[in-house]
Amino acid sequence: MSFIKTPAVPIESINPKVKDCEYAVRGEILNYALRLQEELEKNPGSRPFDEIIYSNLGNPHALGQKPITFFRQVLALCEYPALLDTDDTHKFFSSDAISRAKKIRSTLTGKSTGAYSHSKGAKGLREMIADGIALRDGYPANPEDIFLTDGASAAVHMIMQLLIRSENDGILCPIPQYPLYSAAITLHGGTLVPYYLSEAKGWGLEVFELKGNLDLARENGISVKAIVVINPGNPTGQVLSESNQQEIVELCRKEGLVLLADEVYQDNVYVKDKNFISFKRIIKSVGYSDDEISLVSFQSISKGYYGECGKRGGYMELCGFSEDVKDQIYKVASVNLCSNTSGQILASLIMNPPKPGEESHKLFFAEKEAILSSLGRRAKALEDAFNSMEGVSCQKAEGAMYLFPLIKLPNKAIEAAKKVNMVPDAFYALRLLDATGLVLVPGSGFGQAPGTWHVRTTILPDESKIPAIVSRLKAFHESFMKEFQD
Amino acid sequence: MSFIKTPAVPIESINPKVKDCEYAVRGEILNYALRLQEELEKNPGSRPFDEIIYSNLGNPHALGQKPITFFRQVLALCEYPALLDTDDTHKFFSSDAISRAKKIRSTLTGKSTGAYSHSKGAKGLREMIADGIALRDGYPANPEDIFLTDGASAAVHMIMQLLIRSENDGILCPIPQYPLYSAAITLHGGTLVPYYLSEAKGWGLEVFELKGNLDLARENGISVKAIVVINPGNPTGQVLSESNQQEIVELCRKEGLVLLADEVYQDNVYVKDKNFISFKRIIKSVGYSDDEISLVSFQSISKGYYGECGKRGGYMELCGFSEDVKDQIYKVASVNLCSNTSGQILASLIMNPPKPGEESHKLFFAEKEAILSSLGRRAKALEDAFNSMEGVSCQKAEGAMYLFPLIKLPNKAIEAAKKVNMVPDAFYALRLLDATGLVLVPGSGFGQAPGTWHVRTTILPDESKIPAIVSRLKAFHESFMKEFQD
Repeated sequence: MSFIKTPAVPIESINPKVKDCEYAVRGEILNYALRLQEELEKNPGSRPFDEIIYSNLGNPHALGQKPITFFRQVLALCEYPALLDTDDTHKFFSSDAISRAKKIRSTLTGKSTGAYSHSKGAKGLREMIADGIALRDGYPANPEDIFLTDGASAAVHMIMQLLIRSENDGILCPIPQYPLYSAAITLHGGTLVPYYLSEAKGWGLEVFELKGNLDLARENGISVKAIVVINPGNPTGQVLSESNQQEIVELCRKEGLVLLADEVYQDNVYVKDKNFISFKRIIKSVGYSDDEISLVSFQSISKGYYGECGKRGGYMELCGFSEDVKDQIYKVASVNLCSNTSGQILASLIMNPPKPGEESHKLFFAEKEAILSSLGRRAKALEDAFNSMEGVSCQKAEGAMYLFPLIKLPNKAIEAAKKVNMVPDAFYALRLLDATGLVLVPGSGFGQAPGTWHVRTTILPDESKIPAIVSRLKAFHESFMKEFQD
Repeated sequence: MSFIKTPAVPIESINPKVKDCEYAVRGEILNYALRLQEELEKNPGSRPFDEIIYSNLGNPHALGQKPITFFRQVLALCEYPALLDTDDTHKFFSSDAISRAKKIRSTLTGKSTGAYSHSKGAKGLREMIADGIALRDGYPANPEDIFLTDGASAAVHMIMQLLIRSENDGILCPIPQYPLYSAAITLHGGTLVPYYLSEAKGWGLEVFELKGNLDLARENGISVKAIVVINPGNPTGQVLSESNQQEIVELCRKEGLVLLADEVYQDNVYVKDKNFISFKRIIKSVGYSDDEISLVSFQSISKGYYGECGKRGGYMELCGFSEDVKDQIYKVASVNLCSNTSGQILASLIMNPPKPGEESHKLFFAEKEAILSSLGRRAKALEDAFNSMEGVSCQKAEGAMYLFPLIKLPNKAIEAAKKVNMVPDAFYALRLLDATGLVLVPGSGFGQAPGTWHVRTTILPDESKIPAIVSRLKAFHESFMKEFQD
């Protein structure tokens, strides 16, 4: 009897789409950082820094941000409802947390967070989210058009899976972009059609440039199905102006493109002259009906002032999709049964936080404002620091959680990078990590205009650490520029 | 200017793989049940039953099963750690729940359930799971080979995505099967290669029959990559014998097939002469090394005695995969950042429940035994009921949460079904629902030998309701057989 002795899964045999996909936010630089951290734990003092500061990922709680008390009180009561039945409940929990937990439990299947919910998410929670959307936009939302998901990533995958049939289907994506989009398009076998954001115009979206790339893709036989717009921007931190949003909507309508609106940073705006406006509000205020334009709005519990990344909650709201297409999305959702109920509950809470007059409101408001104003100060401090550095320019940090400064690397640094087979901005980021313990992501992981180099940093390290981070950044940059001066 | 006025997403334009996928467990019968429930809520007394009993889905908490106290105490303390700092903590929480929560928090990034964890899951939790696996099998487990996921479904999708390149790649699946597998294979564009379980032999897996189908698929140009084995069985409820498992392992090794072992019912065995043996233990006890056979074992927090479906926790353990292939899986996991931390924590708890001597152990053991012994009695009662019905035979309910009785439908019923364009077993299930409020799933949703008809029921309705359910089942069946007698 002959035995097949090759391994059952040789690397050559796997799905090439899996091999081709890339995700820089957790790529090689992070792996090196994790090794450095182990080294530091074994040999404290072996490096010129005490700790690794993870600025590669929008992960606020990882860097010490505390959860919002009200949200966690409600969650704890839902997870262990025996706490609702003690004489001391009011000693530990606010009255509105108690009443909210009771209301939420009553909407859950079997009144338990342990039961599968409706595949779109518990109907009562979708109703609460719809209320929150209506309050935000001034236009009603239909709970049946809301799909709760394990983070916004899962929703993005569902939509890419729905829209993409083959490499002949294209999705317009901003460059720079958040690499979830490029990874999802690759995994689902489609083609990324790029459009460049204009760095000189504060990372604005130029519809003229976009239309050119759309036409070019179509000439090349690509059926362009949708456009991704990230607002506030990741990695670029801009907040789109209302007129810019109107132009985008107009283009989508004329060209029959689905507007995929990544609005997960809707609570993160730090400048007084800008505010977040949902694309749904833009569409409704123009008066377009459901058969004129299709929109998917993604929201997440991972960002904002809440930053509940680990709970994996989020939703998408569909507008302008036919019932038969929504049925198909629902069917795919049902294959995975439902998203996690803790994430569902938190999604209902971020869209319905405590209101003035409720017991928790004062504390809630204080916690929220403290986080957002601190984020604003951190963004400004880092923006100023980058702009003070030789050969570095950084656009305004208007929103989201990131800065994406442009770094004019000296030719000698570019040559040195080539010698070790590295992309120049990855070379810079690696040297920075090695010297300071700061983990940033090279711009090449997000895409950038040819010949330009960037890094992305979050604005999330604890505010008390920002001055030291700024000093380390500046000192490193100065010595790097000196080492490689042309 | 000309406007494109067709909707952006006509149904004809969507991914045909999405259109082709099917998922009967939440299909048409459930939709009808939801409509009936609304009708009942509006007009109580309008039907010959008071409530809809959802036996379509293994969703224990939905039908009143209570969560395990220890698990939820730990969860509540992790979600709202302020509870750990009060003088009254010990009044509400057992000492081992408190110490476990502290231990778990110390393993989380930023000590918060709100931070993204490592993309495989928090390392400390993977270590706890590895300890649990080692205790179960008597062989060590490597935390680096464990990937925590949002329920086992997500893990199944990841593996299908990895293995399937095109419709020329095949996955062997049992018939009947749990439709997650057929749906995932369809969505990822592969070919399901069926093998029939032998109903006459208690739904045993006949390797001879399996080998025949494997050879036939290969003759037809299909590259068969893996085999799905569900043990204990869903929808069939059998527990494989050790010798049967050994035969399967031997076949996988000889034929170079990845063994995809769905072991999510490992805690659900109800007969004294059988017990669960993991495929890993079988492989290790024969002494096979990692380059001889590749195994993926799926486990979930949704089943067992815990039934924490809504928390969406689970993991897969990989054995016999090369580092470069594991790196690819890790990369795909990192695109979605991480699975939800509540699910991760619960996965660590089910694999490490309280031990004798710990404060919670007595209550934990009582809760666990009460659930499992009741499930065993319910399984037996329903099995006996089906076997007492005319033209119905039901295999032994050895494990899992389901029964899959064979129903010899009269020709007249088959004709009546054809007249209304229904599959005969769906016709039966719909009539049953209409008459009794019981939601079962037609066998055709899982696949069955041609010309045979089945239904799947869970054994999960509250034990107090089982006698009434049995009476309603019997009365309906009698009248159905009378109506359609040949």
